[in-house]
Amino acid sequence: MNTAELVDLGQQLRVDSVRAADAAGSGHPTSSMSAADLMAVLLAHHMRYDFDRPAHPGNDRFVLSKGHASPLLYASYKAVGAIDDAELATFRGLGSRLEGHPTPRRLPWVETATGSLGQGLPVGVGIALSGKRLERTGYRVWVLCGDSELAEGSVWEAAEHAAHEHLDNLTAIVDVNRLGQRGPTRHGHDLDAYARRFQAFGWHTIEVDGHDVDAVDRAYGEAISTSGQPTVILARTFKGKGVEAVQDREGLHGKPLPDADEAIAELGGRRDLRIHVHEPPAARMLHAVRAGHLELPRWDKGAEGGVATRDAYGQALAALGTARGDVVALDGEVSDSTRAEFFAKEHPDRYFECYIAEQQMVAAAVGLAARGFVPYASTFAAFLTRAYDFVRMASVSGAGINLVGSHAGVAIGQDGPSQMGLEDLAMMRAVHGSTVLYPCDANQTAHLVGAMAGLEGVRYLRTSRGKSPVIYGPDEEFPVGGSKVLRPSDRDRLTLVAAGVTVPEALAAADALQGQGIAVRVVDLYSVKPVDRLTLRRAAEETGCLMTVEDHHEEGGLGDAVLDAFVDGRPVPRLVRLAVRTMPGSAAPDEQLHAAGIDAESIAAAARLLVEEAIVR
Amino acid sequence: MNTAELVDLGQQLRVDSVRAADAAGSGHPTSSMSAADLMAVLLAHHMRYDFDRPAHPGNDRFVLSKGHASPLLYASYKAVGAIDDAELATFRGLGSRLEGHPTPRRLPWVETATGSLGQGLPVGVGIALSGKRLERTGYRVWVLCGDSELAEGSVWEAAEHAAHEHLDNLTAIVDVNRLGQRGPTRHGHDLDAYARRFQAFGWHTIEVDGHDVDAVDRAYGEAISTSGQPTVILARTFKGKGVEAVQDREGLHGKPLPDADEAIAELGGRRDLRIHVHEPPAARMLHAVRAGHLELPRWDKGAEGGVATRDAYGQALAALGTARGDVVALDGEVSDSTRAEFFAKEHPDRYFECYIAEQQMVAAAVGLAARGFVPYASTFAAFLTRAYDFVRMASVSGAGINLVGSHAGVAIGQDGPSQMGLEDLAMMRAVHGSTVLYPCDANQTAHLVGAMAGLEGVRYLRTSRGKSPVIYGPDEEFPVGGSKVLRPSDRDRLTLVAAGVTVPEALAAADALQGQGIAVRVVDLYSVKPVDRLTLRRAAEETGCLMTVEDHHEEGGLGDAVLDAFVDGRPVPRLVRLAVRTMPGSAAPDEQLHAAGIDAESIAAAARLLVEEAIVR
Repeated sequence: MNTAELVDLGQQLRVDSVRAADAAGSGHPTSSMSAADLMAVLLAHHMRYDFDRPAHPGNDRFVLSKGHASPLLYASYKAVGAIDDAELATFRGLGSRLEGHPTPRRLPWVETATGSLGQGLPVGVGIALSGKRLERTGYRVWVLCGDSELAEGSVWEAAEHAAHEHLDNLTAIVDVNRLGQRGPTRHGHDLDAYARRFQAFGWHTIEVDGHDVDAVDRAYGEAISTSGQPTVILARTFKGKGVEAVQDREGLHGKPLPDADEAIAELGGRRDLRIHVHEPPAARMLHAVRAGHLELPRWDKGAEGGVATRDAYGQALAALGTARGDVVALDGEVSDSTRAEFFAKEHPDRYFECYIAEQQMVAAAVGLAARGFVPYASTFAAFLTRAYDFVRMASVSGAGINLVGSHAGVAIGQDGPSQMGLEDLAMMRAVHGSTVLYPCDANQTAHLVGAMAGLEGVRYLRTSRGKSPVIYGPDEEFPVGGSKVLRPSDRDRLTLVAAGVTVPEALAAADALQGQGIAVRVVDLYSVKPVDRLTLRRAAEETGCLMTVEDHHEEGGLGDAVLDAFVDGRPVPRLVRLAVRTMPGSAAPDEQLHAAGIDAESIAAAARLLVEEAIVR
Repeated sequence: MNTAELVDLGQQLRVDSVRAADAAGSGHPTSSMSAADLMAVLLAHHMRYDFDRPAHPGNDRFVLSKGHASPLLYASYKAVGAIDDAELATFRGLGSRLEGHPTPRRLPWVETATGSLGQGLPVGVGIALSGKRLERTGYRVWVLCGDSELAEGSVWEAAEHAAHEHLDNLTAIVDVNRLGQRGPTRHGHDLDAYARRFQAFGWHTIEVDGHDVDAVDRAYGEAISTSGQPTVILARTFKGKGVEAVQDREGLHGKPLPDADEAIAELGGRRDLRIHVHEPPAARMLHAVRAGHLELPRWDKGAEGGVATRDAYGQALAALGTARGDVVALDGEVSDSTRAEFFAKEHPDRYFECYIAEQQMVAAAVGLAARGFVPYASTFAAFLTRAYDFVRMASVSGAGINLVGSHAGVAIGQDGPSQMGLEDLAMMRAVHGSTVLYPCDANQTAHLVGAMAGLEGVRYLRTSRGKSPVIYGPDEEFPVGGSKVLRPSDRDRLTLVAAGVTVPEALAAADALQGQGIAVRVVDLYSVKPVDRLTLRRAAEETGCLMTVEDHHEEGGLGDAVLDAFVDGRPVPRLVRLAVRTMPGSAAPDEQLHAAGIDAESIAAAARLLVEEAIVR
């Protein structure tokens, strides 16, 4: 396209953005209008993409980090012929694929869900990592960012990661329209301010007038020809560009234009230009990949000294990596603690060190998952809280990622509460479509690590620091959604529901109670979500009372999880909840469990009290 | 102190760090040894602090961002005479004040809990903001950071915030010992790499040999004399400095020295130097402050068109700011949506714009709370997930902060799932000692905003985007931990437990059911944590079944919260849970509530089904 045609195309994208928001009665046309020329030139001249084959391995990848500018994205889809004008008018309507913020659940051309700002670039880095280090089909990753979102620290985690990995296949395009939602950004139109920051982080920077299509064209060319480092194009633009009533004005974020017809006229009226996007080069799918036989590590039941579930995780993950070429691992600079180092040692080509940047770690996992890989990302359970917004958005994306939190609970001992995951089960359970697993021994851990690879959505595995007895044999099965009933009898007066470190404690308590003539059974609820409804209901019927014991705060964890079996109006058993109710300090692991009232002695004492007070039958 | 004495003092701090970790059998002596000279010079020559009066308003403030270097902190406390040698030996023991990572819950000289890396500088910025903009007693804030933690995006949110606010009372000291936990950092000893980044963000930078006490001394002097911008001192150091067996070696993070006696001998043996820290200048407490009569906004019951609870929040907060000089507000660039703008307009001196940097917003709130202010920090409920690690650590600190999440739930409508807080209740409930409030009308909101100011710990208020009917009069009381029973009768067959946007839906459902001869009562559970146990138990006894209805994912929210009333072994009523079980798309608010099955029609249908199937009596 020549200059005039590109200018015209930009105007068309503006017109269609205005029309979409007008039809919806909501949306962000002014944020779309600022970036319209950037998008027009990218699609017409530089991006290589087959809209009929979004899975083509040679396709470039585009991420709209400023997801609220979805009208521009959908106007672009129309211009390339991927959707028609009638569908554009469904924007933001019930059942429409054209949501307020784009998601890959509904649209095949969307790589990742955006709408929480500062996430597009981090995920784009993950995709670019895949392209550069794993797929190597030569595709480029283009991420269109807003200027406001550069205030998010996650952007700088991404900037650091991209430069460190020399991702010259990645281009960030920043639509510097100087206005955020409630007013001007910190730096306004000072492109140099942003350039200094990106340069300091090791990026190639280009400053450009974002409405000068020829200059933008040259900028993309320069980005493509830059090697050894990622490029950011900092484009000076105007929010609401092209319509006097809204251009560069405050107070108009996220609002349809006051007079759409007048605006469309001012923009030169409707057009129907069609963009012919460059074909991607021929490329083959890397990860139809080998999927060999999985040889999980095995431990003997009762193995001396026990085995830490984090050790079992590391070994099982390494084995899984041997069996499957699509398994990758990431860690946040604690691989010696989480034991991701076992994988890193055996499969260094598929291991991604993310340093202490948990948001970037999860985002990179989402990017790798978008490219068909099966990522396992690990850090301390406590520090996954740092990335909760990314976990939440992974669920909106429908991304299949495995998250592994080690050093969970007060059982870590001396390091104290800052290092104890005590909210992780609540956090992960509340994620839509998630799976939450909390194994108590090495063989169980290994089986669950293998099973996670085949699940959908966000999968979370909680591991422990200290050694645990190996209570199951290596051939035992542990289906997700299942549980293990330990030592049941028909005289059981109570069911102890435990998981992870509280399973051995519950078993010891059951032994002690047995000695006092009180029979109780133990359910190992290793699958916290989904829970084993049938087993819990049977236990409820047979014993009448469930006592949950968990190394987690009392809200949202195991105690709440058992309720999932009883919220359909059926009779609910009596419930007793033992959990961490106070703020721990430093102490040895056994002292911590005792102080929290979740060790064998505390469990037995609580159970005896119920019997003595005739609360249980 | 002269050079030799400072060197000697550094060695003493190393020796005592080694001794503390040796006594504990765990801890981080090597991370302490790298920063010992930095700490010695700071305390001996530059910091102004009265250890007998930690609340002195003129005291400088010190934050150990690399909280794992706690042995160095405690060795320093010993050197200034704040603790004795016997207490030093209690390090990491049960009941000791000297926890693995320092917390202000136990030690009066600690400003904020650290141990989750990348949080000390962000909180330090909050304290420096207080010093610069509110207290103005001239104190300085010193933050000792590790180099590894500079990978956290939160550090760059803080860097941006500090420079933008010209916090020349803030000095970051980075102990660049080049080694993280599992190996070298990205930049090793390349001080320039860090300097470029901080300079780009607007900081004054000083590079120094962190073991040259005279150079360090000059660096502190330069930091103090720098005006208009914050300073970072980048200090080249060696992990384990001074002991050949551990100095600058990998694999020794977080471990006591292999031979403590030998190491102590190599460091020149035990010493008992005493540091005489400079007295703080005379200063007066700013915020004994005026606390006037609170005139909350009032709305007439049934006011036409209803009122959005976010509007009530903004107006009540502005009123609270008028009554109390210690109330401050922060927002993440969405004050026009959260309505924090009402406060900003009336009290611009106490309003802090944090732009789109939620971690920094919460951290700044923690810093302001550490200085005695009562902060209210707001953004969309969804985006508070970004700051969960900071919320968790606020609880470890025992910080009193108010967090306000607007635009909660599917009820926001067209913007779609990225903008919907659907995990926030779970996330906030799981925080130790938290309070979680979810008002349904304007008067209730206003009362709760006022009540929050007087609570302890982390307080969360969930507000809604759309208008809600005003169902309570302005003089109604809403105690925290209470609830409202609406339309009870002795024929009620079911209790609908609702909060926020589902209260009007539940009331409409109750009306419809009434018309069909089915009496149900509605409990408005505006206090989600703590819950009103007595009322829920009475409803259970009188109606036998509780149906919870919430605009939140089904895990960890209202449905789980009611269980708090029944986990002591008492009989549990039948329970039915209506919640958001699918991933929403875009649609109008009423369509969203219907699609999620939580609108009046869905509630009534579910209740009728229970009656027809004789599940409820």
